[in-house]
Amino acid sequence: MTASSPADTHPASADQALRRLHAELGAAVTVDAAALAAARFDKSGWQAPGVPLAVVTARSVADVQVALRIATEFRVPVVTRGAGTGLAGGACGTDGSIVLGLAAMDRILEINPDDELAVVEPGVINQHLNDALAAHGLWFAPDPASKAISTIGGNIATNAGGLLCAKYGVTREAVLGLTVVLADGSLLRTGRRTVKGVTGYDLTALLTGSEGTLGVIVEAVVKVRPIMTGQTVTIGAIFPSVAAGAAASALITAGRLRPAVMELLDPVALGFIRRYLGAEATAGLPTGGAFLLLQTDRPAALTEAEQALAVLRAAGGDARMESDPLAADRLLAIRRAMHPALAAHGTVLIEDICVPRSRMAEMFDVIAEISARTGIAIPTVAHAGDGNLHPNFIVSHRVETDADGAAEPDPTIPEEVWAAADEMFRAALRLGGTLTGEHGVGVLKRRWLRDELGETNIDLQRRLKAVFDPHGLLNPGTMFDVIERIIATHTITP
Amino acid sequence: MTASSPADTHPASADQALRRLHAELGAAVTVDAAALAAARFDKSGWQAPGVPLAVVTARSVADVQVALRIATEFRVPVVTRGAGTGLAGGACGTDGSIVLGLAAMDRILEINPDDELAVVEPGVINQHLNDALAAHGLWFAPDPASKAISTIGGNIATNAGGLLCAKYGVTREAVLGLTVVLADGSLLRTGRRTVKGVTGYDLTALLTGSEGTLGVIVEAVVKVRPIMTGQTVTIGAIFPSVAAGAAASALITAGRLRPAVMELLDPVALGFIRRYLGAEATAGLPTGGAFLLLQTDRPAALTEAEQALAVLRAAGGDARMESDPLAADRLLAIRRAMHPALAAHGTVLIEDICVPRSRMAEMFDVIAEISARTGIAIPTVAHAGDGNLHPNFIVSHRVETDADGAAEPDPTIPEEVWAAADEMFRAALRLGGTLTGEHGVGVLKRRWLRDELGETNIDLQRRLKAVFDPHGLLNPGTMFDVIERIIATHTITP
Repeated sequence: MTASSPADTHPASADQALRRLHAELGAAVTVDAAALAAARFDKSGWQAPGVPLAVVTARSVADVQVALRIATEFRVPVVTRGAGTGLAGGACGTDGSIVLGLAAMDRILEINPDDELAVVEPGVINQHLNDALAAHGLWFAPDPASKAISTIGGNIATNAGGLLCAKYGVTREAVLGLTVVLADGSLLRTGRRTVKGVTGYDLTALLTGSEGTLGVIVEAVVKVRPIMTGQTVTIGAIFPSVAAGAAASALITAGRLRPAVMELLDPVALGFIRRYLGAEATAGLPTGGAFLLLQTDRPAALTEAEQALAVLRAAGGDARMESDPLAADRLLAIRRAMHPALAAHGTVLIEDICVPRSRMAEMFDVIAEISARTGIAIPTVAHAGDGNLHPNFIVSHRVETDADGAAEPDPTIPEEVWAAADEMFRAALRLGGTLTGEHGVGVLKRRWLRDELGETNIDLQRRLKAVFDPHGLLNPGTMFDVIERIIATHTITP
Repeated sequence: MTASSPADTHPASADQALRRLHAELGAAVTVDAAALAAARFDKSGWQAPGVPLAVVTARSVADVQVALRIATEFRVPVVTRGAGTGLAGGACGTDGSIVLGLAAMDRILEINPDDELAVVEPGVINQHLNDALAAHGLWFAPDPASKAISTIGGNIATNAGGLLCAKYGVTREAVLGLTVVLADGSLLRTGRRTVKGVTGYDLTALLTGSEGTLGVIVEAVVKVRPIMTGQTVTIGAIFPSVAAGAAASALITAGRLRPAVMELLDPVALGFIRRYLGAEATAGLPTGGAFLLLQTDRPAALTEAEQALAVLRAAGGDARMESDPLAADRLLAIRRAMHPALAAHGTVLIEDICVPRSRMAEMFDVIAEISARTGIAIPTVAHAGDGNLHPNFIVSHRVETDADGAAEPDPTIPEEVWAAADEMFRAALRLGGTLTGEHGVGVLKRRWLRDELGETNIDLQRRLKAVFDPHGLLNPGTMFDVIERIIATHTITP
């Protein structure tokens, strides 16, 4: 234990838990100050207050069971963590918690081409699974933007989305079965290896997107698909306004075309990307306009692209089609530069609302109005086929301080930014939308949960959580407030 | 109340409940003996023992709420029923229960082509929704074989499958949100109108397939799709054995082809169909062989069909391709004749196991072995793309009795048939499969639930049910045994 360990402030039970963790899990347990500090962050920039009790690096199902048995015995909270790439604070190690790291459980246990499934440990990186599947002509469809760095376990825990959802579905649709360690250390198996199956309640779907609040996923059976055959065709289109771009994307859907990718960038987003990539790489991108990026795939790619091109031009777009991979890459690079451009700029609150597709233009209007009134820049990109918008609230700017380069910006999100986000969330709900399309509620969106779900629903959800986690130890503070803690007692009567 | 009403045997609370139902719901309540008797059956042929208390024909959400409030007040069980087309006994009115009929709640409330969704009451017939959607170029993908007669509410309650699942998914993937009346009469809204959304637990998925045991679905927001463009191409192939047909269908999947339909009929099934349709309509169908039916669709239909044809011929199939709709219909008619042929023959236990696709040939072997040993004919059809087999146990034969035609056969399933089915279920589980791919557990498969799910899972499921239905009033006996009844009490502590 290092000198900076917070152990001297522990209540007795935490001390006992820590001793037991060391005794039973040995080197898998660390209380190194740097490791504890690192476990308090995720990619949202949010930092959990206080200091975790310990970080456990699990390497087996048995390790996870031991950690949870000890946590339950001593009533110590557990925060499950994969690669720490979440955007809602859901995997940030809270004060006094055991951070249960699963990134080292990274084995692909089986690839079964005949049954089109794979069995993986939770720490497998999404892209690593895809690399291994490619040799079999197969592909795991869920494609969060973080796929190069995020784990399958995290993808399942948040029911991750991505760019291809409108055509290929969200993570839930690719999960066949799970093995889960429950709060008391017991092992639950859900789902199956078959394509269909309706025996009992769909616990697999209930656990998918449950953000570590119901159990710890230690193994997953996932559905994989044949790699797409045929070429991919890419279209880039410039519109005079984001409203015009949104209208054009609605016409694509109304025309019953189903591009694999349809991304819409607003003028503010394009401004940041232009500054980041430079004039040469963004030649042709207008100032003040919006950019719509489409990709069609599979055997009908070219036909569909030609139809889409006609729709976009009729809608006033300056559209061009690229079937050459290099030229297509130049168009894709504009979209891909969005997050690096913002990250380079400073601290950003990345948001994630989703509205019915028909209300997307209105949602863009609301965002522009909030931005104009508050003075907060809100560059926005949308998965336009889904109505899923990512408005990015620019919080603070990176400042050049000395010869060593830029100082790290303050990661705190000030209350006036949350007030602007609050307005936006309420507008999304008013338009029939949701707080979060794919990032999860985590810690950061908890306070709006009741507004979206209503009393009956949230009450039921809390009671369901209590069935899985009667002592409220799993990711407390994620999804639900910790103030009330529900204890369920169950009596079996004849 | 008719003379044959069982009211004279009611406990006092049932009498009070009935009086309140009459007082509050008037003509919507019937205790007519014929109506009560009819509510005890579904399409499985199973008949619930005893007599229901009453049948309520709900016409509004308010009617459902009233019925459930009365049921909870007087602790009377409620069996929810749509069109009564289930195959597992899950909607059969049990002794003393209120049968809550939703077939009259049959309005399509909204079709929204921009957002590609529809909002329906639960009693809307699947095919009626599709008829209404066709005018908008849209289509509701879940396609149980019963689609002409089954309701969307029933499809959701059983998470119905169908012929197109391997390519277009099961019902769960088409349900965006639900409105549900809980046991106490309160209204729960789940899900959303957006394509994506991860706020809170996925109660929509939990309720889909819950067979009326968690709440009563009174409204659904369903996802619809653009109608397929391009021709449909149909292939019929004859194989010397069902093992050869199963191997060929595995090669189709391994070849990364994804036909919309891939149905495999075994020699016993073909025998029944040949006798039913006659020699002319089944010319070319061999005695002792198996029949594989494929359909490809969308723009690449012809290319895919040609590839499939090559695979089937290389696998020893006598295969021919029909793009002419009339010729294709002759091939489809063979598959469609399966259920009428069996129904005309006598009493049949329709089963519904699903195994990993790679184990399908083994499963056919097990069925043939059981049939040979027990002397029970078991004609079997499989959704071969899913590994979902429907073995049909021939129980009794229709006998010509007099000039009026055939006498109704005895619908009872004898214990020796259940013993044979038991062997088959255990084999399916041993092969990594499931008891039910798409029909549900209902009453008829309850006794094998524990074998598939295991103790931890089933215990958790029962406690989840208790959160929704603390008095165990919703479809008691469906999915779980009624012997144990779990009462959950919840205390909120700070």
